[in-house]
Amino acid sequence: MKRNLTIGIDVGATTIKGGVVDIVESKILSQQKVDTFALRGPSAVLQQLNLIIKELMLEYRYDEFTGIGIGAPGIVDNDNSTVKNPPNFTDWTEVNLGEVIKKEFNLPVVVENDANAAALGEAKFGAGIDYQNFLFIIWGTGVGGGIILDNKIYRGPFGGAGEIGHTTIDYNGPLCNCGNRGCIESYIGQRYLSERTRQKLEQLPKEAPQSKIIQLVKGNLGLIEPYIISVAAEQGDPFAKEILSEAGNLLGVAIASILNVLDLRIVVVGGGISAAGEYVFNAITKSVRSRVLTSIKPDVKVIPAKLGNTAGIFGAASLVINK
Amino acid sequence: MKRNLTIGIDVGATTIKGGVVDIVESKILSQQKVDTFALRGPSAVLQQLNLIIKELMLEYRYDEFTGIGIGAPGIVDNDNSTVKNPPNFTDWTEVNLGEVIKKEFNLPVVVENDANAAALGEAKFGAGIDYQNFLFIIWGTGVGGGIILDNKIYRGPFGGAGEIGHTTIDYNGPLCNCGNRGCIESYIGQRYLSERTRQKLEQLPKEAPQSKIIQLVKGNLGLIEPYIISVAAEQGDPFAKEILSEAGNLLGVAIASILNVLDLRIVVVGGGISAAGEYVFNAITKSVRSRVLTSIKPDVKVIPAKLGNTAGIFGAASLVINK
Repeated sequence: MKRNLTIGIDVGATTIKGGVVDIVESKILSQQKVDTFALRGPSAVLQQLNLIIKELMLEYRYDEFTGIGIGAPGIVDNDNSTVKNPPNFTDWTEVNLGEVIKKEFNLPVVVENDANAAALGEAKFGAGIDYQNFLFIIWGTGVGGGIILDNKIYRGPFGGAGEIGHTTIDYNGPLCNCGNRGCIESYIGQRYLSERTRQKLEQLPKEAPQSKIIQLVKGNLGLIEPYIISVAAEQGDPFAKEILSEAGNLLGVAIASILNVLDLRIVVVGGGISAAGEYVFNAITKSVRSRVLTSIKPDVKVIPAKLGNTAGIFGAASLVINK
Repeated sequence: MKRNLTIGIDVGATTIKGGVVDIVESKILSQQKVDTFALRGPSAVLQQLNLIIKELMLEYRYDEFTGIGIGAPGIVDNDNSTVKNPPNFTDWTEVNLGEVIKKEFNLPVVVENDANAAALGEAKFGAGIDYQNFLFIIWGTGVGGGIILDNKIYRGPFGGAGEIGHTTIDYNGPLCNCGNRGCIESYIGQRYLSERTRQKLEQLPKEAPQSKIIQLVKGNLGLIEPYIISVAAEQGDPFAKEILSEAGNLLGVAIASILNVLDLRIVVVGGGISAAGEYVFNAITKSVRSRVLTSIKPDVKVIPAKLGNTAGIFGAASLVINK
């Protein structure tokens, strides 16, 4: 019997991950990864893309493939093919990535922004499967996201929608790398959160009990990263728990604003830092619930993402079906 | 020749305004208004609605009417007929207003939230006529709005979308009447802005030149309202100008967050306070432009609404055509 197989590709700044997805069975049959070589320019990246797709196709019959879906950083044009200004990619202003891959493999190719693809993955196969409308947040290096309306990605008129991380929570807040002040990302993005934690540790009064974070980084506060904070929290460290709940609380501020404007009630949160678990989720939920409008409050749900690293692959694969 | 006439009704908490609109000619042919009697309960309001519609229809042939559109405060259900919890309306939890009016007049009736209707009015006949996608803001008693996507109102899954006023600009900010802190409405809604102005006047050092606002209210600072501030600003009062540009600046913070999330570039601002003109608009534009993402910045436009008081009538009338 001929299966319907789709290739889902998740292009990151350091690694390209890909999988062969059986959409009907909701399963990734096999996975590969290769280096991105983002700093070597677009043609190096395209070579790596070709490489991973070829490797993925090797074990299957060509006529079982219905298409290739690609999630990539940056803004993806309304042609669902051209990728513009992906951050941390050298010499990449605008590349019609979809066209190149389509020519190479003679299959339909659909390209989408990586966070949007992950949102779609959670919508079709993950935490959002029961919800037609939700806000997806991916909280790791930065704070990104996607908006799912009627089971589809809301791309906005120019394909750049879902920039949850640049929602202001304090107009006098810290400077963000986007140039604005007080964006939620400038409080809880990986680098910012680590730096805030370092500063707060240094400001602790000497008589305060030493945080486990300091032991975990062996006194080198420059090594603090969110993963360390969450390990310390799991070991019961009150300072680390406090840092994570403050971060969750702040994320809740941004989420509430967005739910109010869009009249959404469901939030799916994924990404590395959200894996810190209950401290974070309880804080987000409490903050969102205390801040949203009365009409929204009773139905608000903050749900952990389900697919982890594979959300991008699943989402990219389902782009082909959705198109 | 038989014209296509539509009735557009704008239900406010104190006055119901209505007009007979010739959609093809983009013209209001005649207008009426009646008291709302919102405090006397739904049946009193419905009587007034019947009254104004009958008055409007009097001068025309019944067979020229294609339908009745109604903009009302509160959340309008996805049936485009039921109005839920309009603020300042007594004993009104849920009323299927559309059904009652439809029975009475035997014409198609479409009901929509008032701010959404005004947004649609500006989209079809006003400042938004050249734009398929924009954010509409109505800045008066409160800060409300609507989101126009692909020339249509974005209602959200439950009809409550567009609550621009409850976008947080400072998570530690002043308490808002919605229960949240630091909503933009809690800085620049009519009552809040008047109160902020009063407080700032009282805090002015004695040697500072006296603001024209004080003369205009004859020393009674309880009488300050946005209209007074804008009159003072027009007379060159630096304090009043400063108040208005600060308000515009703050509104720009909320707008920038929303443009980033939705990838919109056009903002149409209407409502009583926005009539204060250039001080306000220059400040909003500057603030938005300095805060939005690089991808949005070059195309950002903040445009004054065009239809003033009639946006609601035009928008309500065009609901019928759009349905």
